[in-house]
Amino acid sequence: MSTAAPALLRPRAAPALPARLARSAAVTGAGHHMRTDEVVGWLARRTRAHRFRVERVPITELDGWSFTPGTGDLVHRSGRFFSVAGVWVDVPGGPTGRWRQPIVHQPEVGVLGVLAKEFDGVLHFLTQAKMEPGNPNLIQLSPTVQATRSNYLRVHRGAEVRYLSHFMRPERILTDSLQSEHGSWFFRKANRNMLVGTVEDEVLLADDFCWLTLGQIGELLRLDHVVNMDARTVVACFPMAVPEAGALHSDVELLSWLTGERARHDVDVAAIGRAGVDGWEHDTKTLGRPYGRYFRITGVAVEAGSREVTGWSQPLLEPSGTGIAAFLYRHIGGVPHVLAHAKVEAGHLNTVELAPTVQATPGNWEHLPIESRPPFLDSVLTAAERGLVRYEATHSEEGGRFLDADIRYMFVPTDEETAPLTPRAGYQWLTVGQLNSLTAHGHYVNVQARTLLACLNSGAVRL
Amino acid sequence: MSTAAPALLRPRAAPALPARLARSAAVTGAGHHMRTDEVVGWLARRTRAHRFRVERVPITELDGWSFTPGTGDLVHRSGRFFSVAGVWVDVPGGPTGRWRQPIVHQPEVGVLGVLAKEFDGVLHFLTQAKMEPGNPNLIQLSPTVQATRSNYLRVHRGAEVRYLSHFMRPERILTDSLQSEHGSWFFRKANRNMLVGTVEDEVLLADDFCWLTLGQIGELLRLDHVVNMDARTVVACFPMAVPEAGALHSDVELLSWLTGERARHDVDVAAIGRAGVDGWEHDTKTLGRPYGRYFRITGVAVEAGSREVTGWSQPLLEPSGTGIAAFLYRHIGGVPHVLAHAKVEAGHLNTVELAPTVQATPGNWEHLPIESRPPFLDSVLTAAERGLVRYEATHSEEGGRFLDADIRYMFVPTDEETAPLTPRAGYQWLTVGQLNSLTAHGHYVNVQARTLLACLNSGAVRL
Repeated sequence: MSTAAPALLRPRAAPALPARLARSAAVTGAGHHMRTDEVVGWLARRTRAHRFRVERVPITELDGWSFTPGTGDLVHRSGRFFSVAGVWVDVPGGPTGRWRQPIVHQPEVGVLGVLAKEFDGVLHFLTQAKMEPGNPNLIQLSPTVQATRSNYLRVHRGAEVRYLSHFMRPERILTDSLQSEHGSWFFRKANRNMLVGTVEDEVLLADDFCWLTLGQIGELLRLDHVVNMDARTVVACFPMAVPEAGALHSDVELLSWLTGERARHDVDVAAIGRAGVDGWEHDTKTLGRPYGRYFRITGVAVEAGSREVTGWSQPLLEPSGTGIAAFLYRHIGGVPHVLAHAKVEAGHLNTVELAPTVQATPGNWEHLPIESRPPFLDSVLTAAERGLVRYEATHSEEGGRFLDADIRYMFVPTDEETAPLTPRAGYQWLTVGQLNSLTAHGHYVNVQARTLLACLNSGAVRL
Repeated sequence: MSTAAPALLRPRAAPALPARLARSAAVTGAGHHMRTDEVVGWLARRTRAHRFRVERVPITELDGWSFTPGTGDLVHRSGRFFSVAGVWVDVPGGPTGRWRQPIVHQPEVGVLGVLAKEFDGVLHFLTQAKMEPGNPNLIQLSPTVQATRSNYLRVHRGAEVRYLSHFMRPERILTDSLQSEHGSWFFRKANRNMLVGTVEDEVLLADDFCWLTLGQIGELLRLDHVVNMDARTVVACFPMAVPEAGALHSDVELLSWLTGERARHDVDVAAIGRAGVDGWEHDTKTLGRPYGRYFRITGVAVEAGSREVTGWSQPLLEPSGTGIAAFLYRHIGGVPHVLAHAKVEAGHLNTVELAPTVQATPGNWEHLPIESRPPFLDSVLTAAERGLVRYEATHSEEGGRFLDADIRYMFVPTDEETAPLTPRAGYQWLTVGQLNSLTAHGHYVNVQARTLLACLNSGAVRL
């Protein structure tokens, strides 16, 4: 009993897309718009074209921001954007047990959107030279659209978000999922990661924007501090087809292992007021921890010409020291596999997500005996000292919320002795294709693992 | 650079499984162990073989249960099992806005596991005749294993859970995901839904157990109160291959729509003490709502011979009146599609999940004008009155936590006038195959939609 014409139907999957993405990844030296070696100079010119100034100010003197009496939360007078609140965490059997910490609370879901268009038969992606106050070099390459809900609803009465309409009413959706961000710093934050295609003949190119191939983005991912976190996470979600002969574990076995990891962790997390967090000291300048471990909350004042608004001040979370995020990898049956960690992070919605083999800030562990440090951390540090890493670059985390949050990203080859095929509890081998497939859904692959996946998707590294 | 033999690799997907499940669904009249028309009699004999008695008792007289001073939560002295606490909910723009309600809190993840084995080339599934105090007929067909973590860690010092080892150390995993349960009654509860195969020659058959084909389970799903909720949700997760020429929306479009639904709902939910819930009255007998709407908390005392323990008392949540869960469906381009509702439920981890087109208890809406009632409710009720439903059966929800929680499950054909191809906001058409695929992951398909999907997977109904 058919009530509509068969022409209404379409295939459930678009089989041509992965081949088109692979073709774009193969184009590295120059795209339709710019040579790859011109991009860094162009970013520097965009920085000079605007009059950006960012300076540290005491958190008690931030315009529009104040500590709420009672809860002690640091909030904006509009009630929007984000706040610095607290969280109480109980991880029975975990290395740290129970603790309380300040955490950034941002319930709004923002859009991180990349627009794709073919030039001469090759997909290009529209990137933006975007200033964020926490970036060490201020301007980095961002997605086409990087907007909180407050941004695009124009709560701060700023300029319209360019190209937003492509994401509010997409012509052709290529991927769209809610992905978590830093679970140690954010309370259950997720952003919408979108890749959208356009078939418009002409997309007007605004000043701060540039079309790049996936291969060009890959080249730029070999440099420090060029491709911002928001661009990296969207590139990680690009639905690639990785040619692989098979995997150590089938997809069902892999999901079952992760289900088991989620089931065995009885994590209890509760949002509390910032005032309920002991052991963090708040003076007029910053909110931090004795001995400077973990992170502190710092204030900045910003003057800018190219942002939606021309000046503002805000708090930023400033981590103590450079982090490390590294995948150990092996060729198993000739197919590259990475060793993922099912990692509990306080701010994750669903207990654990897949993280790199090592994700840690070494400085936070130096005071502890070696057996208490994160597994594989010393292997990675030793490999880095000896130059035995396959890929290494330092990238910045979200510069709109974090100040100088640098992470050294690495791929490190390993062997049966260091990382056997049957790994220790909480770790598992999976192929690059399996890691990529999981990004079709939210809350599987954490944001640090997604940066490393972006390097694989774009060809910045081949294992 | 290969460090291991290619024999280590296996395919990411097991292509033979869907065909084996389809073959099992085609076997309806009799299985290896029992004729289908013998099952109800066997259940009745199992009921008589045990000496079950369930009687209502005042909630203040439950052995081992008491109201915690301060929070007012109803808890067990062991601190395990579950508790009745409260929740505060804010759904801006939702039909109800803000409210507080009691809610069942059960942070432990349990196992709902079905064991599969071939007899004469046909997959059979091991079901159990299991008593749950809230079932109207006490004994129903359950999965092979239906155990909370307290059960299988033997917190209540009861008997060992039979067949548990097949799920703790599975030989062959066919599906395994964390699925939510009733979001209006449970706070973020999820259970592990597992289908596991065995290649053992002999699996010892215990007294209360029975091997059935998927087709036999389908036949039994046409009867009221025979297949319990735990069995239904696992059957819903069976990875079927539904032969479909295509879909109205590609998988990516469907996920994007759901991502958008999650992003646009700014739901705020906080766990609170039960004492913080206004408007619910607690006397010595029950905890309920004036006018008896929604549900009340009731106490029962149980005497049983076949359970892990021989007698106990506990609270149960008793809904007021029979609910309705119905999918409207249409053939689009010759392919059956159901109309899913992206429904906000207070207890859901991830804001919204896909629910049936109508999921409501009509009695809770009778006092409201017709335009305030849930969309499509009247269409479904009218179709039911006129006998225009394709499938209808009344099933019990989880009898270990709910008392006489009956839902009338229906599939109702519809047309362009009632339910156009471009539906109202919050609703979307998807194929049966798409609905099935989503159960590979958690938190997409809610428990009521999974009961309806179990009817499709098992052939209880064909659209």
